[in-house]
Amino acid sequence: MKVLRVRRGAATFYAQLLLEERAVRCLDRTLGVPEVLPLTEVSVLAPVAPSKVVCAQGNFRSRLEEIGRGPGDAPMLFLKPPTAVIGNGQSIMLPRATSRVEAWGELAMILGRGCRNVAPEDVPRHLFGYSCANDVTAGDFLAPGEPLGRAKGFDTFAPIGPWIETAVADPTQLWLRTTVNGAVIQESSTGDMVLSPYALVSFISTIMTLLPGDVILTGSPSGGGRLAPGDEVRVEIDAVGVLINAAKAEEEAAPLQ
Amino acid sequence: MKVLRVRRGAATFYAQLLLEERAVRCLDRTLGVPEVLPLTEVSVLAPVAPSKVVCAQGNFRSRLEEIGRGPGDAPMLFLKPPTAVIGNGQSIMLPRATSRVEAWGELAMILGRGCRNVAPEDVPRHLFGYSCANDVTAGDFLAPGEPLGRAKGFDTFAPIGPWIETAVADPTQLWLRTTVNGAVIQESSTGDMVLSPYALVSFISTIMTLLPGDVILTGSPSGGGRLAPGDEVRVEIDAVGVLINAAKAEEEAAPLQ
Repeated sequence: MKVLRVRRGAATFYAQLLLEERAVRCLDRTLGVPEVLPLTEVSVLAPVAPSKVVCAQGNFRSRLEEIGRGPGDAPMLFLKPPTAVIGNGQSIMLPRATSRVEAWGELAMILGRGCRNVAPEDVPRHLFGYSCANDVTAGDFLAPGEPLGRAKGFDTFAPIGPWIETAVADPTQLWLRTTVNGAVIQESSTGDMVLSPYALVSFISTIMTLLPGDVILTGSPSGGGRLAPGDEVRVEIDAVGVLINAAKAEEEAAPLQ
Repeated sequence: MKVLRVRRGAATFYAQLLLEERAVRCLDRTLGVPEVLPLTEVSVLAPVAPSKVVCAQGNFRSRLEEIGRGPGDAPMLFLKPPTAVIGNGQSIMLPRATSRVEAWGELAMILGRGCRNVAPEDVPRHLFGYSCANDVTAGDFLAPGEPLGRAKGFDTFAPIGPWIETAVADPTQLWLRTTVNGAVIQESSTGDMVLSPYALVSFISTIMTLLPGDVILTGSPSGGGRLAPGDEVRVEIDAVGVLINAAKAEEEAAPLQ
């Protein structure tokens, strides 16, 4: 099942996407929303509003080789702020403060039930589903010893979508492809991960309690691509979907106050 | 005014602490809660439930000297997960996965209004207030090049309290003292910060939108102290308060599922 998060009037809810009908079916019967709604009658939001976005760094063997580290160093963890999350079709903002913004395609896992200290084999029953994600990164702020809060934390730097796919039989053998304006910049299988998706969630759950809606970004293979205004970046994962976002220069925006 | 976040029945709300009366006054009149309640009739929670906790690293000159870096490197930013937040009197859990847990006292700032790209001089009217915080850190996971998600992200690693103090005339000259079992391990003035509190919030707001309730940890001076089970750590900041937490060994807890 493909799940969107949508708004209709004052109500925000998860809904099953009916692709052929171009409609959604509300998954929350307590809301009293008609169960099937044309897509034209709802606003599609980012597929999830997480309390935290936990990201693995160096979890692909190809990427570890690229940065000269070994599998024993994996996984290294960092967080992106929830304010960085955007959905499919929303624009990645290229901040004025940086001259180098990079796209890194990743498999995202979304929690359905809270958990802590969960064993790898128990992870599937705590998952809501899978999505595509882009670990957008300001390459200027990756100096040695600098933590990743700035490089990874700008608004719009966590595109996730196009939906949550709940039916993925085996997340360990999915083909992942990232393109910028149609040119392939990353191509790999999730089989190249050091910690498999279930093992990664298990590991993170030994550190921090995971809550429903929390997002795990499972790491990116070697490559990555630089973005310029107007570029279109696609993260495509077999059995999950295609996430498409365009890059645009940060506007001279007035302060939000 | 000293503000607590409390629960009474099904309602959670901010309340003014009336220290002498040992009571609180509900600050949300829409709830229909009696306005003054004895402390015995409420459960005191962590003073804030943030969407994000943004932390500055190396923002004290004394700490930068200690780690051999210059003021030009400051501030370096990282995030703690909201699941790490605990309040005054709650226990800091020493995880089985690490043999070295450190206490680092800090001034916390709590946002009252959302903001982005806010100028330093406009920061005060976006603040809710100030609190004491402890940037609890697993020293085992600070290897070079490792991001801070694991070292800083364990449950209970962000004690904040004892309350939110809304009336701090000048946050740039506050004396901060951290003690473990009464022995002083850190003592400094917030005047030793590289980026002053308002400038730090302004800087962070150029990266990520700040939301009401978000917490900024402003960095810690040199020192820091190792914690053993049973230790009591106090973070004391003039004009703000004293945050007290005991350390305890992680129990052989059953998985939370």
